[in-house]
Amino acid sequence: MPSIISEADNTGNQYKFSDMKELTHTDKKGKAVMVDVGDKEIQKRVARASGHIVLEGETLRLIKDNLLKKGDVMTVAQLAGINAAKETSGLIPLCHNIVLENVSVTLSIDETGVKAESEVKCTGKTGVEMEALTAVSISLLTIYDMCKAVDKNMVIDKIVLTEKIKS
Amino acid sequence: MPSIISEADNTGNQYKFSDMKELTHTDKKGKAVMVDVGDKEIQKRVARASGHIVLEGETLRLIKDNLLKKGDVMTVAQLAGINAAKETSGLIPLCHNIVLENVSVTLSIDETGVKAESEVKCTGKTGVEMEALTAVSISLLTIYDMCKAVDKNMVIDKIVLTEKIKS
Amino acid sequence: MPSIISEADNTGNQYKFSDMKELTHTDKKGKAVMVDVGDKEIQKRVARASGHIVLEGETLRLIKDNLLKKGDVMTVAQLAGINAAKETSGLIPLCHNIVLENVSVTLSIDETGVKAESEVKCTGKTGVEMEALTAVSISLLTIYDMCKAVDKNMVIDKIVLTEKIKS
Amino acid sequence: MPSIISEADNTGNQYKFSDMKELTHTDKKGKAVMVDVGDKEIQKRVARASGHIVLEGETLRLIKDNLLKKGDVMTVAQLAGINAAKETSGLIPLCHNIVLENVSVTLSIDETGVKAESEVKCTGKTGVEMEALTAVSISLLTIYDMCKAVDKNMVIDKIVLTEKIKS
Amino acid sequence: MPSIISEADNTGNQYKFSDMKELTHTDKKGKAVMVDVGDKEIQKRVARASGHIVLEGETLRLIKDNLLKKGDVMTVAQLAGINAAKETSGLIPLCHNIVLENVSVTLSIDETGVKAESEVKCTGKTGVEMEALTAVSISLLTIYDMCKAVDKNMVIDKIVLTEKIKS
Amino acid sequence: MPSIISEADNTGNQYKFSDMKELTHTDKKGKAVMVDVGDKEIQKRVARASGHIVLEGETLRLIKDNLLKKGDVMTVAQLAGINAAKETSGLIPLCHNIVLENVSVTLSIDETGVKAESEVKCTGKTGVEMEALTAVSISLLTIYDMCKAVDKNMVIDKIVLTEKIKS
Repeated sequence: MPSIISEADNTGNQYKFSDMKELTHTDKKGKAVMVDVGDKEIQKRVARASGHIVLEGETLRLIKDNLLKKGDVMTVAQLAGINAAKETSGLIPLCHNIVLENVSVTLSIDETGVKAESEVKCTGKTGVEMEALTAVSISLLTIYDMCKAVDKNMVIDKIVLTEKIKS
Repeated sequence: MPSIISEADNTGNQYKFSDMKELTHTDKKGKAVMVDVGDKEIQKRVARASGHIVLEGETLRLIKDNLLKKGDVMTVAQLAGINAAKETSGLIPLCHNIVLENVSVTLSIDETGVKAESEVKCTGKTGVEMEALTAVSISLLTIYDMCKAVDKNMVIDKIVLTEKIKS
Repeated sequence: MPSIISEADNTGNQYKFSDMKELTHTDKKGKAVMVDVGDKEIQKRVARASGHIVLEGETLRLIKDNLLKKGDVMTVAQLAGINAAKETSGLIPLCHNIVLENVSVTLSIDETGVKAESEVKCTGKTGVEMEALTAVSISLLTIYDMCKAVDKNMVIDKIVLTEKIKS
Repeated sequence: MPSIISEADNTGNQYKFSDMKELTHTDKKGKAVMVDVGDKEIQKRVARASGHIVLEGETLRLIKDNLLKKGDVMTVAQLAGINAAKETSGLIPLCHNIVLENVSVTLSIDETGVKAESEVKCTGKTGVEMEALTAVSISLLTIYDMCKAVDKNMVIDKIVLTEKIKS
Repeated sequence: MPSIISEADNTGNQYKFSDMKELTHTDKKGKAVMVDVGDKEIQKRVARASGHIVLEGETLRLIKDNLLKKGDVMTVAQLAGINAAKETSGLIPLCHNIVLENVSVTLSIDETGVKAESEVKCTGKTGVEMEALTAVSISLLTIYDMCKAVDKNMVIDKIVLTEKIKS
Repeated sequence: MPSIISEADNTGNQYKFSDMKELTHTDKKGKAVMVDVGDKEIQKRVARASGHIVLEGETLRLIKDNLLKKGDVMTVAQLAGINAAKETSGLIPLCHNIVLENVSVTLSIDETGVKAESEVKCTGKTGVEMEALTAVSISLLTIYDMCKAVDKNMVIDKIVLTEKIKS
């Protein structure tokens, strides 16, 4: 969609046009539209995303303790992410519904909180970035839910797409 | 849920009990549980949350341009947030389903991107923090979706609960 | 919402217009908002709606024949309506989720097609008009679905709210 | 599904019976069945539908005013229709779930109210008529919802399939 | 619902009225209806259900091994049950949507497989039996799903309501 | 998934270990994972399941009477099963979402209650066993719901997969 246009003016000077980017989910009048993927190629598509929740030391200790006990906190958050990926087209208005081949979510403790990483795969006409990002977001919200009684300073941040592959 | 524990300091003095916090969504073995709210009081409850998405200058320009045209980008994201609030108990595994009295989502452009703010109200036995946070998260993911073709450096961050009121 | 309409009295004096009607689901800038029902009274509320689908004589004959056989066509459409009423807040963006006390849908054959009538009840802070209208609409769409292979001229029409009661 | 039956009458004359139509979603006993699409061809399929809501002059003025302000009324209704198309198989009991390639909904003001038009596309074994009709119906119900406080005489009508293409 | 009918036997003796039970979800013609709970009393309601899945010894060994590792099999099944309870009114056509105060699911290994037990609580006008039974059923189906590659002889059975309390 | 391991014992004799089965929905640490079906072959897949609900004689009489009247009890249960099959991936956490080509549910009265049988078809990378089992389970729960006011001794049992075909 973005197009790099380069032209020479009539004095022979080359000047660079910058990317003329356009939003893909709005029409010329700015109104909302889905992207018609009917003519796109069926390809293997993978997307990976990550995000983070900042926790207080005490909360982190409680989660580590739960892990030591092999408790459920991380599993609940991981499952919530997997299931949310499957519901993405019902949550993000202009997303397509997609048959997913795999969703995985991994949660790991770091010094300041918990990091969530997801990977989503499909074979189809449209990518699975939003599925990967939704999985991460809902996993982190689920940790928030389970810790909200003990930690009043949680922050969810650094939600990014880390990789997108077509093949 | 919090339990008072007594300890002696190294002078032998008994010092005041501190709250030993515990996760409310796990039992003593660390297994997942919902919180039984049957005996909680029916109260008016309000929760407010906010979050942010970092956009490139060019993307911000496109969104401002869409706003100038009174286009739909912000409205799509706002509606996605309102609807997600209503679906929270289906997304966050240990959340209760709640009859909501109001959900509002406001989106505003700042220097580095778009800020989302939500407010959710109910009269019931359990708070609506997760509904407010889910509204913000899905609104920001919706902006991500609509801008992902033009901006490869978006980051969703600063998702926090800003206020919680019971009355 | 109520509107006082201004008229000139018989002395020819113009008097000032009060209450100009306003859309309740948009704010002063025209942006979408839910209606905050937090301060509304908890009341018994009933809404009734009806609608119609025009069918060809041959299709009507097939449905009558199915009824004679005590077949399922009408039941499938009726159940679809009942279930849709329960999903209304997920379909109509600014609708509140509501605990429903009853949903009934009745389908009857008339000279030109099938008439659907619904009644929805709740005790709560907001009415159930949209639930009654959604029940009727989805029941009629379900008849459309089951007859679409044999009738290319179906029209769904006359979907109206027939009664709304608060007590 | 329709079957041509040819029989001889008792004078020995062969006469052609016309198409004996049958409902496709019921079996011989009249019981409900899905249509098995396993052996159907994968084709590009497009369906278009339209519908209308009759509004009072005053309501129409409010919507026009909202449009002048580039407000959200039409966008809310349009998005509701797009999302409903994606949920069709959960609403219409004997519908198949389908991967949709595009859903578009257009709303326009005419002399007596608002017209909704939809187009849905897929590449698959079954058509998308019900998705197009559901999009139109839910868009119109959403307008109903947003105007119900100011207009007690709305009627949703003329919901029809306008085109169906296989290629 | 039960109605007492009096009849005389052929000796002219009046004999004792027996309860003539009637289905509550059908009307006099046998057509489906929801039960109108509008006039029922708001009460605390608890329902408990249980069920069982028969597993081969080898499968049981794998689940025990997963438990020894404090793996996730039981947690996945337990969460699936909790979430299904919240979705009951979308699954069972004539069920009411209900605000639940608690859902708990416990899974335990016995000699022949895994037993699931659930408890669901609400304060409302209708009981939560179906929620408790749905929780158990979906928990057991989830175990089935996770074991289906290694065990071709699983049987889900003994799904019963074990207790129902109103207070 | 099963792996044949062959080792030599300490006498030097080679002996065949039998299949060392492993759970497919957990990783080596026992944590929950979806099965990545990306590299599986697209095949026609059929699954059949059945299950049973034990009813009291009186309840059975009421259902037979409803059938005689050509009432709706069986149809409501059958439709619930068909619709549940379409929702399976939202209910069973590690299930893939699948485009289904057909779902059929048949209910029949036997001496002790009602038997439910389902058949589900797709063309895809993963089987439809869980869809067939979910259809049966929800059909039986729906019968439970409709009979629970008259029968306090119902038991759902014998839920099994009866056939699985790939071609």
